[in-house]
Amino acid sequence: MREIPATWMRGGTSKCWVFERDVLTVPGRGVDDVLLRLYGSPDPRQVDGVGGATSTTSKAVVLTPSDRPGIDVEYTFAQIGIADGRVDWTSNCGNCSAVVGPYALRRGWVVPTGDVTTVRIDNTNTGQLIVVDVPTPDGRVTEEGSDRIPGVARPGLGVHLWFVEPAGRTTGALLPTGNAVDRVDGVRVTLLDAGAPVVLVPADEVGVDGAASPATLDAREDLLGRLDRIRRAAAVRMGLAADPAGAARATPKLALVSAGRAGRSDVTVRMLSMGRTHPALAVTGSVALTAAAHTPGTVLSDFTAGGQEVLRLDTPAGVVTTRAGTRDGRFAIGVTRTTRRIGDATLVLPDDEPTTPTAASAA
Amino acid sequence: MREIPATWMRGGTSKCWVFERDVLTVPGRGVDDVLLRLYGSPDPRQVDGVGGATSTTSKAVVLTPSDRPGIDVEYTFAQIGIADGRVDWTSNCGNCSAVVGPYALRRGWVVPTGDVTTVRIDNTNTGQLIVVDVPTPDGRVTEEGSDRIPGVARPGLGVHLWFVEPAGRTTGALLPTGNAVDRVDGVRVTLLDAGAPVVLVPADEVGVDGAASPATLDAREDLLGRLDRIRRAAAVRMGLAADPAGAARATPKLALVSAGRAGRSDVTVRMLSMGRTHPALAVTGSVALTAAAHTPGTVLSDFTAGGQEVLRLDTPAGVVTTRAGTRDGRFAIGVTRTTRRIGDATLVLPDDEPTTPTAASAA
Repeated sequence: MREIPATWMRGGTSKCWVFERDVLTVPGRGVDDVLLRLYGSPDPRQVDGVGGATSTTSKAVVLTPSDRPGIDVEYTFAQIGIADGRVDWTSNCGNCSAVVGPYALRRGWVVPTGDVTTVRIDNTNTGQLIVVDVPTPDGRVTEEGSDRIPGVARPGLGVHLWFVEPAGRTTGALLPTGNAVDRVDGVRVTLLDAGAPVVLVPADEVGVDGAASPATLDAREDLLGRLDRIRRAAAVRMGLAADPAGAARATPKLALVSAGRAGRSDVTVRMLSMGRTHPALAVTGSVALTAAAHTPGTVLSDFTAGGQEVLRLDTPAGVVTTRAGTRDGRFAIGVTRTTRRIGDATLVLPDDEPTTPTAASAA
Repeated sequence: MREIPATWMRGGTSKCWVFERDVLTVPGRGVDDVLLRLYGSPDPRQVDGVGGATSTTSKAVVLTPSDRPGIDVEYTFAQIGIADGRVDWTSNCGNCSAVVGPYALRRGWVVPTGDVTTVRIDNTNTGQLIVVDVPTPDGRVTEEGSDRIPGVARPGLGVHLWFVEPAGRTTGALLPTGNAVDRVDGVRVTLLDAGAPVVLVPADEVGVDGAASPATLDAREDLLGRLDRIRRAAAVRMGLAADPAGAARATPKLALVSAGRAGRSDVTVRMLSMGRTHPALAVTGSVALTAAAHTPGTVLSDFTAGGQEVLRLDTPAGVVTTRAGTRDGRFAIGVTRTTRRIGDATLVLPDDEPTTPTAASAA
């Protein structure tokens, strides 16, 4: 019976299992197979593994220290399928990105310097440089902090993530179609690639209240079906898939956008992730929204003045703030997330072949 | 920062964290507080801890070896509240009971003897003796097995649990009201205490299809509300609460019962747990149903012949089989469950005070 070491961390509003790359190398098994077995997939309840049966709790962070100049850690993100038996490597998770810096410091991959230590991360899914500032008071590594973010009840260690020159990491261009606005399935949308490829859909274009709760939106199967059709058609336009059926579940993401609430926020956003409404906001989505707010003529121009340094995004969990600025002399978009280590573990790798719960029921 | 060792195991269709009793003793904090912090409660998503945000994945098993004659392990079960900040110690979980024997053998609390080793467990919540037969081929402790149960995709180590003389462990009597049938809120019900206190409600008495899916039942807020009123009124009749408002969330449980399907099952059951429909069946509920089938005049008499050795219960996950027989010369009800160790962990105990996500959102 093989056991695999892993660390469980909250990153922002996600729960992420961290694996060092070598531990996932198992003779006779591919990495996807190893991850699916550890997470208890495929199974809608993931009852036989560490998966949490929701998109925000079925995530893996695969790390290795880097000796490349200007890079401390190579970070690959995996979204582990729940009811299906697939692992999606096509996108990054910004929330999970937040755990990489604290993990690297704890492991000694990066030596702390002064009250704040910078960790330089290459996200290999997207070729994105993420520069992270982690508190290290008096040059000490700490896991404790008192920062708070919307959607998380307890405080954590606040880390500042800068996505450096995030445009076009997946498709090669900020606006893959060359247009600030396209029409897909009769709807005015912006197709944009920054942090991650995202489809921005004005809520009123699809006749929905942009501030509706996730439960309300998820109950609208007709709406979810239509938005997924738009998302898949957009994937083809963005060069991410040869045809709609070939579009990945996790890429592009889709966000419903509408006006913010005066005195509170600039934009209201409801993001869809893996076919359901995200309880908060994917960080990569917040990067894309910030880039869109800085790009003339996008659907966000209806709500934002453009060029503003701070953008306030109203999510189901509360208001998330992003910054546009420079880092290492380059354009960068910054977000703050908190992290917490939940625990260290050694996980048992199941050897057996699964049946579906339905098939087992007949036994 | 305090760290607490724990082992994560699947027991039947539940995910259970196992703690040895002493590790939950933390100066200045009660056990409830420690558990709520470890599980990330209160928070509907339990994003900051090990809780899985569903009733079947927010459970704790607290163990200590016993030196009492005829008892190997003392086992206390805790249902950890999710959105509320409460720990419910009023009932046992039969699924989690299945992990106790394999855990005790692995820890060396019980010495294996021959191909099957018997572990004697005192469940302290209910004063119930559970005699468990665990496979130990050639006298070796093993964690691997190829047994399957409905509702779990992968096989596991099959253990046989016998609930010895399960009647009246909580209330003092098999039929706490003295009646095989009572009328509560205008509905014919059986109030019975075996394994756990349970309210058996014929599905047609409340005008519902007894074979409806959990999703269908959970969408019927009116029905769930009515059943919870019946459950709370029954709690008072059974002497479990002074008034309906004082009834515990987890006790008594309530099961909708109807006829089985010829050639497949004897009884169809949909069990409610913590206000939602259980995806399979609480093991303690299967014990109560088996006892009811052996008791003349209960609402199950409509469907069962009475006195049969094997009872087949149709659950949303498939057919669960129970046995009525004798163990150590006493009447006992037997069920088979599979177990798997998911992993060993050291968990970080958060020190900070939570705010509700809603309050954090306003920040």
